[in-house]
Amino acid sequence: MRRLVTNTLELFHNMIRTYVSPGDHVLDATAGNGNDTILLAESVGEDGKVYAVDLQQTAICKTEERLIKAGLTERVDLHCMNHAQIDRLGLVGLSLVMFNLGYLPGSEKKVATQGESTIQAIAASLRALRPLGLILITVYPGSDSGLSEHTELQEFWQTLDQQVYDVMEMKFPNRRNLSPYGVMIQKLR
Amino acid sequence: MRRLVTNTLELFHNMIRTYVSPGDHVLDATAGNGNDTILLAESVGEDGKVYAVDLQQTAICKTEERLIKAGLTERVDLHCMNHAQIDRLGLVGLSLVMFNLGYLPGSEKKVATQGESTIQAIAASLRALRPLGLILITVYPGSDSGLSEHTELQEFWQTLDQQVYDVMEMKFPNRRNLSPYGVMIQKLR
Repeated sequence: MRRLVTNTLELFHNMIRTYVSPGDHVLDATAGNGNDTILLAESVGEDGKVYAVDLQQTAICKTEERLIKAGLTERVDLHCMNHAQIDRLGLVGLSLVMFNLGYLPGSEKKVATQGESTIQAIAASLRALRPLGLILITVYPGSDSGLSEHTELQEFWQTLDQQVYDVMEMKFPNRRNLSPYGVMIQKLR
Repeated sequence: MRRLVTNTLELFHNMIRTYVSPGDHVLDATAGNGNDTILLAESVGEDGKVYAVDLQQTAICKTEERLIKAGLTERVDLHCMNHAQIDRLGLVGLSLVMFNLGYLPGSEKKVATQGESTIQAIAASLRALRPLGLILITVYPGSDSGLSEHTELQEFWQTLDQQVYDVMEMKFPNRRNLSPYGVMIQKLR
């Protein structure tokens, strides 16, 4: 027996390793420093495709640099854009979409995701998912902008039809207040 | 890909199949109609042991009947008692403890678990767990007594030292209000 859940990101990385298969098409809606993009690129294999989006050119550059080092650039399409507009990419049949919300690492807490655009991006991702596809979201309520984003998301989940979407929140009630938490959405049909 | 989480009990049954090993000692703190007891008895194998507790003699009888039919009685110690008093059984080294709270199926909603005794039973279970052992709890806030039990439990989780226990709540925010949810506690040391 091992420690099962150290934090949400570790939990989600284990889910990616379990549920993303060679040939899958997936989306990293918050490329950031490329951590999730790399794991996704490894998981979809040579015949798969990762779409990775970030609002900041610095994030796209960092992610690209890491993909080049790992020899994985062929599998990844990078897009410097607001993820609220991912409908424009015309994605369909995605098996998994990853959101790691909050500040861009290294941006000195100047740039963070916002509730309204995050919700637009999640709604667009739901449309682009294939049946039984997953969205994995890490929420950071422990900052001012993160707290209001968290509040808006709490309302958003309740609008999702339970006949069409399973939504599961994974929270850690004995950790210091406003600890990060995870949300998994599975599209049933 | 399959539907990942239909409900908490299915999720917990999958966790039992994954994490309970032959030879393990485990506790079913709410034997009820014996569903969980049977699965636990199958999972611990011939060399393991299941302790199963229920306040009601009818529950113990139903569980025993099912164990006899399944040929699993040798692996199970049944105890008709309040689970608040499981300290008296002197259990140690448990790898997993299961709580399925709320009404006893078939009791016509006359007998339900209560916050105070449930918390005593969980506290005793934490002492009886081996390091990295798990407690899996299904909470039913959708009735009057269930709602007050849920409220008391929400306060209880917050008293658990995060250095010693990982506590993860699994809730379904787009299901009808007060849907059942799961809590997993892992004892780290």
